[in-house]
Amino acid sequence: MALAQAPAPLSPAEKEEAAKIYFDRCAGCHGVLRKGATGPALDPKKMAEKGVEYLKAVIFGGLPGGMPDWGRQGILKEKDIELVARFLLEQPPAPPVPTFEEIKKTWKVHVPPEKRPTKPLHNRNWQNFFGQVLRDTGQVAIIDGDKKELVSIVPTGFATHILRSSATGRYFMAIGRDGKASLIDLWMNPPQVVAESKPCLDARSIESSKFKGYEDKYAVVGCYWPPTMVVLDGLTLEPLKMVSTISYAKGAGELVMEARVAAIVASHFNPEWIVNLKESGQTWLVDYSNLHKKGRPLPITMIDTNLFLHDGGWALKRYFIVAANALNKLIVIDTKTREFAAEVEAGVRPHPGRGSNWEHPTYGPVWATGNIGSPEVTVVGVDPEKHPQYAWKVVKRITLPYTGNLFIKTHPNSPWVIVDFPMSPSPQAAASLCAIDKRKLEVAKCWEVPGAQELKARMVHPEFNKGGTEIWVSAWGSKDTPTFIVVYDALTLKEKARITGDWVRTPTGKFNVYNTAYDI
Amino acid sequence: MALAQAPAPLSPAEKEEAAKIYFDRCAGCHGVLRKGATGPALDPKKMAEKGVEYLKAVIFGGLPGGMPDWGRQGILKEKDIELVARFLLEQPPAPPVPTFEEIKKTWKVHVPPEKRPTKPLHNRNWQNFFGQVLRDTGQVAIIDGDKKELVSIVPTGFATHILRSSATGRYFMAIGRDGKASLIDLWMNPPQVVAESKPCLDARSIESSKFKGYEDKYAVVGCYWPPTMVVLDGLTLEPLKMVSTISYAKGAGELVMEARVAAIVASHFNPEWIVNLKESGQTWLVDYSNLHKKGRPLPITMIDTNLFLHDGGWALKRYFIVAANALNKLIVIDTKTREFAAEVEAGVRPHPGRGSNWEHPTYGPVWATGNIGSPEVTVVGVDPEKHPQYAWKVVKRITLPYTGNLFIKTHPNSPWVIVDFPMSPSPQAAASLCAIDKRKLEVAKCWEVPGAQELKARMVHPEFNKGGTEIWVSAWGSKDTPTFIVVYDALTLKEKARITGDWVRTPTGKFNVYNTAYDI
Ligand code: DHE
Ligand code: DHE
Repeated sequence: MALAQAPAPLSPAEKEEAAKIYFDRCAGCHGVLRKGATGPALDPKKMAEKGVEYLKAVIFGGLPGGMPDWGRQGILKEKDIELVARFLLEQPPAPPVPTFEEIKKTWKVHVPPEKRPTKPLHNRNWQNFFGQVLRDTGQVAIIDGDKKELVSIVPTGFATHILRSSATGRYFMAIGRDGKASLIDLWMNPPQVVAESKPCLDARSIESSKFKGYEDKYAVVGCYWPPTMVVLDGLTLEPLKMVSTISYAKGAGELVMEARVAAIVASHFNPEWIVNLKESGQTWLVDYSNLHKKGRPLPITMIDTNLFLHDGGWALKRYFIVAANALNKLIVIDTKTREFAAEVEAGVRPHPGRGSNWEHPTYGPVWATGNIGSPEVTVVGVDPEKHPQYAWKVVKRITLPYTGNLFIKTHPNSPWVIVDFPMSPSPQAAASLCAIDKRKLEVAKCWEVPGAQELKARMVHPEFNKGGTEIWVSAWGSKDTPTFIVVYDALTLKEKARITGDWVRTPTGKFNVYNTAYDI
Repeated sequence: MALAQAPAPLSPAEKEEAAKIYFDRCAGCHGVLRKGATGPALDPKKMAEKGVEYLKAVIFGGLPGGMPDWGRQGILKEKDIELVARFLLEQPPAPPVPTFEEIKKTWKVHVPPEKRPTKPLHNRNWQNFFGQVLRDTGQVAIIDGDKKELVSIVPTGFATHILRSSATGRYFMAIGRDGKASLIDLWMNPPQVVAESKPCLDARSIESSKFKGYEDKYAVVGCYWPPTMVVLDGLTLEPLKMVSTISYAKGAGELVMEARVAAIVASHFNPEWIVNLKESGQTWLVDYSNLHKKGRPLPITMIDTNLFLHDGGWALKRYFIVAANALNKLIVIDTKTREFAAEVEAGVRPHPGRGSNWEHPTYGPVWATGNIGSPEVTVVGVDPEKHPQYAWKVVKRITLPYTGNLFIKTHPNSPWVIVDFPMSPSPQAAASLCAIDKRKLEVAKCWEVPGAQELKARMVHPEFNKGGTEIWVSAWGSKDTPTFIVVYDALTLKEKARITGDWVRTPTGKFNVYNTAYDI
């Protein structure tokens, strides 16, 4: 490669703007401190070797490994790309770490708990509501799952990422990429945000306390920046306690300054959360049952599991299975014995979302994950008590027609496991879905969703309704053009309905109240 | 003040040398990152306002608040003082953080456990041995307490700080200010270092696992830099697991990058250590009973107590009382219920060392601490069960003739509580000791130790022998001149013996095997 000429250093104003773009668009994968995780590390010296022109080309057009084509998609303008490319040649600025006092100021209770209804103020079947993330509008749409009609749209954080249900299902908690947490009361008419706070600058996960006696009492936010876990009051989102996740890799490695919090789930066996630290490869069991005492004691059991923990889901509501994605592994935590139970080889870059559970005639209870980088659904035996010969073994690697899968979902009442392909480089594949036969463990049917490609939309995140009779999937397009949510019959796989409207913009994850609250 | 002229910036070589002097001499109180703790913060901008000449004067001559007179004592030469003064005007360099791999390389087993004796190889009464820190020679002297003769001298870390006994008393563990931990086997003939490792660059505390079933199984080192707690194998000092103590102040404040580990003690009620974080004001209960399992689970209960935790000791072997020194407070942890029990107002800058326990006819069980900054011994009722009216109340503030007390010690078989004054600015006071009447709660007698002033020695750290019949106190002089350890009769307070020799140089803390192992 030709020796790149050094570009002019950024002015302070340019640097600030570049840092903001980087923070919003790049830090998620490459890290604020650029040490890498989902994406590679971006060392200033190495970047300088590549040169500004090369960097600009990559930021514009993407790379096959998963780097998005920010320029081609029109998300970053030429000027932005130039700024970011030059920014990458300079040392990363130390990003701010808010103090507790500062995050406390972001806390707002719009409707205090005592003013909230004691029963639903509408006659809708709220347990079958769907919370649909409208990613780039920073909103969540509440949709009546029975009637398939919009109930309300509520404002949430920037590039809202996921929703979780409170233990009772009454509340949705949303987390924005900007770290804003919003509490949505589904009993109000219409549902609305009753409390919010912004415990950090960059977050991906939120969870409530689900153990008996602690329903809806606490919430927790997992932050990317600062690398921190923040405990909140479950009914008001008041920040209560902050724990830094700066930690040594696997308890016996380098000090990882940017050890970000990935998946968090609430245990059913103990009053605790399972909190996964990405870059330092630790799984923390965080016991929330003593927080009312003097000094807010918070017992955290630090288990060294493996690096690059990302997302995960329940098997038998007892084993939490989390992807160590860059290692192509699955980590199994037994939340009853509170132990690191096993490690399983997945495909390339496993991405379970919440994964899928079903009972197989031969293998007994199984759990499955998709993989972003290989066309495979990995099916794992999960019952060491009654089917020990299959437990924590891959019982089947089901071949898919495409790579680029992100989510996989099933329901006890459906014979199918549904998979999407939003990360596929092929627009046709990204517009397609497949159904896997749960008994035969093979793909039974794949189809392209009509109308998706025309809208430049990728089909993403299947979710079942409460009864398990329907599958909902979102058409993820650009913010400028409304798309749709398609509803399939969960037996026949026939299209049953399409939810449309001017408001249906960048729909991504959607969460059925009942299934999310009860970890179906 | 006249406007100070900016001095020339340090050359890289000068900076390195200045950083080393600062690290060895100043960081203990002012922090590596200069955020302050025992001493004030040293902000480069404020230092520049004061000017180099002023700083040189202070480093040379000390300050009444506790800043030592490094120049006058001859510890720092004029050139060193000049370097450090200029160093303080510049931004603190980021000190290195060793990786686990690096610290693992410092681990040496000189005599493996299976080659160690199964019973003592000498006929001495090893339970009455004293381990005497020879601070500035980086050694520990093992002294036969019955015969008052030197048994052996073993090499330990730089500016060795304290010793702790293993649960059985067989091993002494020493910790150097350079972070080096040494395991001394008292059953060898002569006693010698059988294992060592250097889990950090700067440390003050070390402790063993004392709970039934875990005797001598694990050890823990509390580091100042990097701010980290390291768990070691108890018999080999092999580093097993590192936990960063970077944390938010009291769980609800600023992120404290230099949250140093102060006192650590082993609980008698649970398989855990009580670990105190100085700048972030947290007390951690660290459960070592699961470390043998996959992923080395380490449950840490994080309790928000108060800032500036430093040293502390047991009351009734159940309550751990630790000084929040800059706040003039004592923090009480109930290690049975594992709760933050109380906060008590002490004198100015309480410094309990391990504190003193006795039974008072009116107040029942009491515990006492001295205070560096006020001439007071603070006596606190410690029995909420049988004497609730006095529990966690100051039952008496005993007036001393001098300030500058550091340590206070008693024994069930002695009617006296002995206090020293090494931090007193008066050489005569620093050479003196006082005895407090445990029943009357007043000073019964004070005396100057003959010969101490002549040696420019400060009398420091009273310690009882196993039977409680003798009190040993060290004459802390300079490295160039041998001093002595004086032994008093614990009833009559008459001088009984003096231990001398060319090897008696800078004796500071001393630890009786039995009393240290059993927390007498
Ligand atoms: C840690 C993590 C979880 C698990 C949360 C939990 O269980 O507590 C998760 C789950 C999720 C879930 C929850 C799945 C479920 O069924 O529960 C969804 C829908 C989701 C939609 C997306 N995620 Fe997610 N996601 C990240 C992180 C995570 N995503 C990223 O770091 C990443 C790769 C890049 C980024 O900067 O955010 C990223 C990009 C995306 C998207 O682009 C997706 C597809 C669309 C969107 O709206 O952002 N992520
Ligand atoms: C955190 C801490 C403890 C509690 C350890 C535990 O219980 O696990 C402690 C205990 C101690 C104990 C244990 C007392 C006991 O009876 O158990 C002793 C003897 C001691 C002798 C000294 N200490 Fe100590 N000491 C510090 C820290 C501490 N000292 C400092 O930060 C400080 C102020 C400055 C520094 O840079 O080290 C400091 C200076 C000293 C001394 O100068 C002393 C007097 C002499 C020496 O040899 O260093 N410290």
